[in-house]
Amino acid sequence: MGNLADCCRRFWCPMKNPNVRVSLPAVCFVWQIAMIILFGLFVRYNEEADAHWSMHMKEKNISSNIENDFYFRYPSFQDVHVMIFVGFGFLMTFLKRYSFGGVGFNFLIAAFGLQWALLMQGWFHSLDPADGAIKIGIENLINADFCVAGCLIAYGALLGKVSPVQLMVLTLFGITLFAVEEHIILELLHVRDAGGSMVIHTFGAYYGLTISWILYRPKLKLSSSLHGSVYHSDVFAMIGTLFLWMFWPSFNSAISDHGDGQHRAAINTYLALAASVLTTFAVSSLSAKKGKLDMVHIQNATLAAGVAMGTAAEFMITTYGSLIIGFCCGILSTFGYLVLTPRMEKYLKIQDTCGIHNLHAMPGLLGGVVGAITAALASESVYGHEGLINTFDFKGKYANRTPATQGGYQAAGICVALVFGIVGGIVVGCILRLPIWADPSDDNCFDDEVYWELPDEEESLPPILEYKNHTTGKIPEMSEISYTVEQS
Amino acid sequence: MGNLADCCRRFWCPMKNPNVRVSLPAVCFVWQIAMIILFGLFVRYNEEADAHWSMHMKEKNISSNIENDFYFRYPSFQDVHVMIFVGFGFLMTFLKRYSFGGVGFNFLIAAFGLQWALLMQGWFHSLDPADGAIKIGIENLINADFCVAGCLIAYGALLGKVSPVQLMVLTLFGITLFAVEEHIILELLHVRDAGGSMVIHTFGAYYGLTISWILYRPKLKLSSSLHGSVYHSDVFAMIGTLFLWMFWPSFNSAISDHGDGQHRAAINTYLALAASVLTTFAVSSLSAKKGKLDMVHIQNATLAAGVAMGTAAEFMITTYGSLIIGFCCGILSTFGYLVLTPRMEKYLKIQDTCGIHNLHAMPGLLGGVVGAITAALASESVYGHEGLINTFDFKGKYANRTPATQGGYQAAGICVALVFGIVGGIVVGCILRLPIWADPSDDNCFDDEVYWELPDEEESLPPILEYKNHTTGKIPEMSEISYTVEQS
Amino acid sequence: MGNLADCCRRFWCPMKNPNVRVSLPAVCFVWQIAMIILFGLFVRYNEEADAHWSMHMKEKNISSNIENDFYFRYPSFQDVHVMIFVGFGFLMTFLKRYSFGGVGFNFLIAAFGLQWALLMQGWFHSLDPADGAIKIGIENLINADFCVAGCLIAYGALLGKVSPVQLMVLTLFGITLFAVEEHIILELLHVRDAGGSMVIHTFGAYYGLTISWILYRPKLKLSSSLHGSVYHSDVFAMIGTLFLWMFWPSFNSAISDHGDGQHRAAINTYLALAASVLTTFAVSSLSAKKGKLDMVHIQNATLAAGVAMGTAAEFMITTYGSLIIGFCCGILSTFGYLVLTPRMEKYLKIQDTCGIHNLHAMPGLLGGVVGAITAALASESVYGHEGLINTFDFKGKYANRTPATQGGYQAAGICVALVFGIVGGIVVGCILRLPIWADPSDDNCFDDEVYWELPDEEESLPPILEYKNHTTGKIPEMSEISYTVEQS
Repeated sequence: MGNLADCCRRFWCPMKNPNVRVSLPAVCFVWQIAMIILFGLFVRYNEEADAHWSMHMKEKNISSNIENDFYFRYPSFQDVHVMIFVGFGFLMTFLKRYSFGGVGFNFLIAAFGLQWALLMQGWFHSLDPADGAIKIGIENLINADFCVAGCLIAYGALLGKVSPVQLMVLTLFGITLFAVEEHIILELLHVRDAGGSMVIHTFGAYYGLTISWILYRPKLKLSSSLHGSVYHSDVFAMIGTLFLWMFWPSFNSAISDHGDGQHRAAINTYLALAASVLTTFAVSSLSAKKGKLDMVHIQNATLAAGVAMGTAAEFMITTYGSLIIGFCCGILSTFGYLVLTPRMEKYLKIQDTCGIHNLHAMPGLLGGVVGAITAALASESVYGHEGLINTFDFKGKYANRTPATQGGYQAAGICVALVFGIVGGIVVGCILRLPIWADPSDDNCFDDEVYWELPDEEESLPPILEYKNHTTGKIPEMSEISYTVEQS
Repeated sequence: MGNLADCCRRFWCPMKNPNVRVSLPAVCFVWQIAMIILFGLFVRYNEEADAHWSMHMKEKNISSNIENDFYFRYPSFQDVHVMIFVGFGFLMTFLKRYSFGGVGFNFLIAAFGLQWALLMQGWFHSLDPADGAIKIGIENLINADFCVAGCLIAYGALLGKVSPVQLMVLTLFGITLFAVEEHIILELLHVRDAGGSMVIHTFGAYYGLTISWILYRPKLKLSSSLHGSVYHSDVFAMIGTLFLWMFWPSFNSAISDHGDGQHRAAINTYLALAASVLTTFAVSSLSAKKGKLDMVHIQNATLAAGVAMGTAAEFMITTYGSLIIGFCCGILSTFGYLVLTPRMEKYLKIQDTCGIHNLHAMPGLLGGVVGAITAALASESVYGHEGLINTFDFKGKYANRTPATQGGYQAAGICVALVFGIVGGIVVGCILRLPIWADPSDDNCFDDEVYWELPDEEESLPPILEYKNHTTGKIPEMSEISYTVEQS
Repeated sequence: MGNLADCCRRFWCPMKNPNVRVSLPAVCFVWQIAMIILFGLFVRYNEEADAHWSMHMKEKNISSNIENDFYFRYPSFQDVHVMIFVGFGFLMTFLKRYSFGGVGFNFLIAAFGLQWALLMQGWFHSLDPADGAIKIGIENLINADFCVAGCLIAYGALLGKVSPVQLMVLTLFGITLFAVEEHIILELLHVRDAGGSMVIHTFGAYYGLTISWILYRPKLKLSSSLHGSVYHSDVFAMIGTLFLWMFWPSFNSAISDHGDGQHRAAINTYLALAASVLTTFAVSSLSAKKGKLDMVHIQNATLAAGVAMGTAAEFMITTYGSLIIGFCCGILSTFGYLVLTPRMEKYLKIQDTCGIHNLHAMPGLLGGVVGAITAALASESVYGHEGLINTFDFKGKYANRTPATQGGYQAAGICVALVFGIVGGIVVGCILRLPIWADPSDDNCFDDEVYWELPDEEESLPPILEYKNHTTGKIPEMSEISYTVEQS
């Protein structure tokens, strides 16, 4: 495996010139124009968003506008939207000098990704055979945000080490792979995965980790002075953490069935998340010499339960079942940050800036397994006759599927997500090694200076950074410096 | 009174060793496991979240999924959730070096508290006599968040002076007391308090203030260098303030009656909050030498109107009635910060870090009184026959209660909340003085260093803090230091 | 034109004494008491918020509480509320030393403005002829927030250069002008403008720009050291940007027609906003020497598409139509920041702190024009017979209006908004030049010190600011200073 990656790495030896003045505008303009043309050719409002809705109501004998899907899903959609842009964005502001890149590039690729996702998912799921058009409504917007989430997860592994152009390419391919993978899992295999443990998190995490493995930077230590947080950047990151944590019940319930499906998914996710907070604090404290808590754990591992509930949230997993999953996730994920992340860099050459292996990969796999087991154990006595049919959608050509079979298909879904993540990651990783993407050099990683105009005169800049700017351009270690401080 | 507290204080003389490496993980693990067992024994989905919902719809002749309580209350629930985690959390980031503790410990105790609250409130309110199980749905989640709010208010008085283990204990007892108090007020006395002026705010504030009185630290001045804000920590606190302020209409309307009840509660709270902003700015400016505004007032006193509208928001209190309450609250609360807080510390030995006496205690009492008066004055001419019955729930065995009697019971509710807060606070305060809770010493208060791994090398650290780290470990006063600054 | 402004400027030559200790409390108290009296005389709950609702349901044969307008609009209302207080507020925290003023004064004037707006808009739109009372419900709260937005936009041009008292005056007149203008446009001309491209953005922007022109400060350079951002203040501003960006679909759909109207408005706005992000990044990168992105563009120009979709969002503008508008807005607005803002200050003497000309004025005009064209091109084949009537409200005395005529009236609406903004701005600007408003002197602009008690001892203050405080009171340029940094 290592040889393959080495081989890939040697084949393309990028020259570093992180100037995106031509490439970034070119990509943005060309792709946005392509979006306009494709939307013009393919995308129309669905019947609930079209001005013919009042006619449609009469035909379908719908008595009130409140039955429009908009009112079932719009509040959840806005919560998901906040998770994508503020949640993921601010979670990535924790680095001392990469907050602009964290929140800014997240903004860029999410805004592009959702357009491409509407098209890709539309071709697979929402194509109206009558006129060959994609018909979109509120549920499509939620799904597009979900699709984008997969790519933002991948960005987490690469934070600070890639150029915005690379991120755009990563997103283009990521969304495409996602849509195909989702089609196979949700439609061909008829797997249930409303909150995306497999489809979103497992896929996104392995996609990002594999790319990071291909893009391994042996001399990343050169940027180590910027590879950490400062006090206030950690507080900014908590904004991201909390909005993700609070709105995860909306994420997992956003496209569940109307009524009890959405209701139950929200309750289960809420409970699991609460439990994972306690075990995260416990393990974080237990692992430090004086019991001191580590902000990295609190910012990330508390969220793992939301990931792990992605598949089973809408099932009758019981309230204590949700708590147990949350309990395990807090431990598992914190353990990952403590033990696995440093070893993965050392032995596997996977540099994972935000620790997505601990927050998305492992909990995503766990969520897939939990979903498969819960599905396999479902019974009419627990769900009721109709409840079972509705929850697993045993209708049409799947009317004869049993819960046990469904469990098997759920397990197969995990494998599909994994394969798409890893194989897709290898292909896209190789593409991203081409020496044309203006990525930063090893000593310029985690530095907003490369792609952003920074404020000229920073009043909160300590002398040490002035020192950098005015003389050698290097930042001395704190220990190399002494300040002249006199008693007056 | 002072003697009693002194006596309590002397009886237990804590030795300070703020290492929570054993105690915090132990408490988190044991309690989380207890939660899992108790949820396993007692907690089930209610009929609106259970997969049998579609059967239930037929039985009750419900025509549409949109009638599921989820759609009535979920948007308000998420707003309340934001208030609990981002609102309270960020409001407590204002200290210059206790932002991690403010937002982090808030996160921990809220996540624990809501689980315990679901159980405690469930036993009192949602026990299904058919099978002895607690049946939970979206309204229970809102109530659990409300219950947690009481403990977070208490945390406000103790911010920076207690260990996370103490906070967990405070929360365990606080939630328990809350559930009993709430049962007495809302069910035995049949009092209306949808936004919790009495049940949440009065109880929580006196609970916290009494504990702070018992835990009085005579040498807290030793930490005075950290007992204040810096520019950016004040901006962080405004995030908390604004989310609390904006979503308070959701807080007061979240569990009001469907339809006009929720509608009216939101409008009344919105108006009262707007009025309190103006009077807060006015008094804050009036009180300073050059009319300069004080961020402490703006961050806190602007919210007092939400507290004071907790009881009466769903009543026909009229729009101008709401404005009058807001008007008074801004003045009262700002006055409290200016005059009462320093005197309470000096004369009553109550150290109230966030000023919860001004933000929750006084406005909570005021809200209880306003609610009692408004209820006593209610009439069929204003509410209509059915409106009166619905608003005050004069049904079943309360069918014969008159508004005047209701007013009396409302007033009794205030007393119950007060008694529970003060007596509960004394008991819990004494428990928290046991020398086993790893609380910080007097010169270590308001310092995240004690319980958190802080970022090693802080680029925004000025020389003065380096000086601390490398030599004596003490921070010199600004005035003791001169910097060498030369013209180039 | 320049002469007129000069003339106005000379006529009133303000003496600068920025002490608001008398004026600010006086204005707040007097106006808040006036609000209470006027609300007492005029404002009542509407039938959906009144306790008679259950009676009303029977009369109107409404089967369920969920049909109460509260459930159609409350989630959107809360999103709009977040935009007003957190969105606008934090967008204005970008200056290095004016974050308190940005978010704090925004809070003050919005809280006042919404009360006055409820009255002014109520007199024009919601007066119940039966009893002469203004009947308010959730839609009125949304409209009040909209009305406030106009004044907050105007604040953007004046940020850092005016006193809170001036802002209160600006708001009082701004809301009044807004209500009249809105009445003319929406009711007399029967123009559709649900998201307010004309009514809110065009009016607000020209109102603010004209006032800024009248209040031109020739010596503003004296404050140039504070007229910029620092690293963390730019991150704070991104909180504002993202909440505005995410919730703009709610803004444009909040008061659209129930059902497909709200649904379509949200989709269209979502798409346009996504497109504008890409073109903003593109132009920002293209314009800088090394392709480096500018935070000012990302914070502002990405939002222009929301402004431009204000009128047409609820029309059948098609999905690609929305993308095209977003595409153009990102370019137009970023171009404005690069080229127009500096030239407007130099040649037109309009100092526009936040660049509202680029974010609100131009996109607002564009939105008005797009709306007029889209309306003129509407046809029954696209909208359906009923859809056309519902969307443009061709009912009652407007039953015979054709789309082409409607387009003409839409265009007329733009002119009305422009005239009100400019003429109103001249009048209010002259009032604000009276030497009684305690505005800051030219060398005190953009400084919170003037109106706020700042934290005494700022740990993140670098020596340079101490230098200012202790000696001459002036801040030296960074280049004038050298720090003594020694290798240990």
